[in-house]
Amino acid sequence: MTCKIGLIGCGTVGQGLLEILIQKKEYLKKTFDFDTKVVAISDMLKGSLLIPEGIDIEKLLHLLEQGKRIDAYLEGKPNEAKQMDALQVIEQCDADIIAELTYTDIQTAEPATSHVKKALQTGKHVVTSNKGPATLFYDELKKMAEENNLFFRIEGTVMSGTPVFNLFEHGFAGNSIKEIKGILNGTTNFILSKMEEEGMDYEDALKLAQKLGYAEADPTADVEGFDALAKIVILSNVLLQGNIKPSDARREGITSLCREKILEAKKDGYRYKLIASTKEEKGRIEASVAPQKLPLSDPLAGIMGANNALTFDMDLLGKVTIQGPGAGKIETGHSILVDILTIHHHLSK
Amino acid sequence: MTCKIGLIGCGTVGQGLLEILIQKKEYLKKTFDFDTKVVAISDMLKGSLLIPEGIDIEKLLHLLEQGKRIDAYLEGKPNEAKQMDALQVIEQCDADIIAELTYTDIQTAEPATSHVKKALQTGKHVVTSNKGPATLFYDELKKMAEENNLFFRIEGTVMSGTPVFNLFEHGFAGNSIKEIKGILNGTTNFILSKMEEEGMDYEDALKLAQKLGYAEADPTADVEGFDALAKIVILSNVLLQGNIKPSDARREGITSLCREKILEAKKDGYRYKLIASTKEEKGRIEASVAPQKLPLSDPLAGIMGANNALTFDMDLLGKVTIQGPGAGKIETGHSILVDILTIHHHLSK
Repeated sequence: MTCKIGLIGCGTVGQGLLEILIQKKEYLKKTFDFDTKVVAISDMLKGSLLIPEGIDIEKLLHLLEQGKRIDAYLEGKPNEAKQMDALQVIEQCDADIIAELTYTDIQTAEPATSHVKKALQTGKHVVTSNKGPATLFYDELKKMAEENNLFFRIEGTVMSGTPVFNLFEHGFAGNSIKEIKGILNGTTNFILSKMEEEGMDYEDALKLAQKLGYAEADPTADVEGFDALAKIVILSNVLLQGNIKPSDARREGITSLCREKILEAKKDGYRYKLIASTKEEKGRIEASVAPQKLPLSDPLAGIMGANNALTFDMDLLGKVTIQGPGAGKIETGHSILVDILTIHHHLSK
Repeated sequence: MTCKIGLIGCGTVGQGLLEILIQKKEYLKKTFDFDTKVVAISDMLKGSLLIPEGIDIEKLLHLLEQGKRIDAYLEGKPNEAKQMDALQVIEQCDADIIAELTYTDIQTAEPATSHVKKALQTGKHVVTSNKGPATLFYDELKKMAEENNLFFRIEGTVMSGTPVFNLFEHGFAGNSIKEIKGILNGTTNFILSKMEEEGMDYEDALKLAQKLGYAEADPTADVEGFDALAKIVILSNVLLQGNIKPSDARREGITSLCREKILEAKKDGYRYKLIASTKEEKGRIEASVAPQKLPLSDPLAGIMGANNALTFDMDLLGKVTIQGPGAGKIETGHSILVDILTIHHHLSK
């Protein structure tokens, strides 16, 4: 069965997914009997394309590499999608699955949420690594998907390609979660690692993170804990059925942590980490993001650099920790592939 | 749909599974629409029972707690299974799934392999945490299962309830594995941890492990690396399609590691671990079990005590490490439940 995909947003993650689809074409066919056609792409900056027979991905990536627009693909030929915006592309394309890969806006979750809704309203499954819709409207979108017998899958929203929801669904089935606790922001973990390992002060470590591309020019979302907050809200709502908003959780960033405090902790055998955690207590979700001084024996204390990790504390299995990449073009592209494969698996039954 | 289960072996793991089935009955029904009937049990030491309407598990566990035999369940009533051995019980019971939970024999993989074959030959799916059949006959049994349109699932064979195969199948789908490397024996990891953290010598650490129930009276299988060897052979054959035997892999235990060597490594910022690893090199599987001196920055260096861990190094995701329990009554029982749920999920489509 050929799975028809529509891509909304064709930046880093979208191109990562396309690269994987080229690189793994034969493998996916052989292993999962999975074949794919990308039938639509829409990017706010680069234009739109609707090709029901399937887009030649190599040709498209080649154009993008040359700095050209997506609609240059049809140069000289009529392009019915030329004037369309993302919503029109979603509505009019023949995709089975829409991959929503636009930028995250944590305040409004737009335009991503409108894209997700339009897809679900027009009978298309949705996979996304965009934190916005999952943070602010998970319950609503999940219900909308279920009512339409569709999937709304979000594996990449918390640790990019490092499995979270698939791990829980398939590896931990039957467990009740007592607490989830993790390092969900690579930028701040990189900064804290540099401050401890190399005795850097905060400003220098931040500058290095910016130079290496880990931190944005405006680092607020990372260093003040907003990014980790969004992720712990998603975990609370998906895995603890919480229905909380970001404002329901306590948030403290790393800007109050000076080098002296970190080095003093180190001397005592402790390590500061920006810890996101959530649990249910007396029927209420207690979620927070804050620096914590961990003993070195804590599995999360060993997570250095830009890596992410999550510890699930469960009634049957006790504590299980997974660590891996928390960002990256191919890594996040992989999270989208995994969700698409899950849907493909169900569709081809 | 009610899933009918036959239990072959009713020791620690079998009783762990039964306890979970009682404790989680409502949860499993609500969450997965999963209901179960245990229709047969056979234990070499405790007797056999065939009850097509389903065994009252609480009553049975109560009898076992009192040190009674399984067949005491039918005291005073006729018990058609009284004279049956495991093979007859497997053949004659009406189970959808056989859980093979007898003791592991790494030399012969018997009687477990005969149990697995009989089940597959009589149309029953098999789930097992028994390392024997998976170590010596994985390919044969997998093929036999496929030819009969049945499942042969072995999640619990490597790290008990800590997900390995389900993690790969659902979390890493699409990746090629470059190398798998792990700590797969809790006993030796406990001993090495004690030698380093408390400066114990090997003999004292071993005695403590025996006292705490981590090590057997004859510790050979653990300390000489046979247990970890079986697990890395399973990983090689299942995840790298290796078809290797234990004799194809290099094996070195921890008995050559003295306290001095461990403490010297510690001074230099290293830590000795018994590492099982496997990769494909030029079309050949290179698998081994041996002590390795790891830098403290290696995720496996942080695994202390009786915990287990595995690092998957992959082409798309890079390195992802999972750590958790590697043994335990409820933990291993959970691995069986997870495999049963996967089969149930497919059967109820």
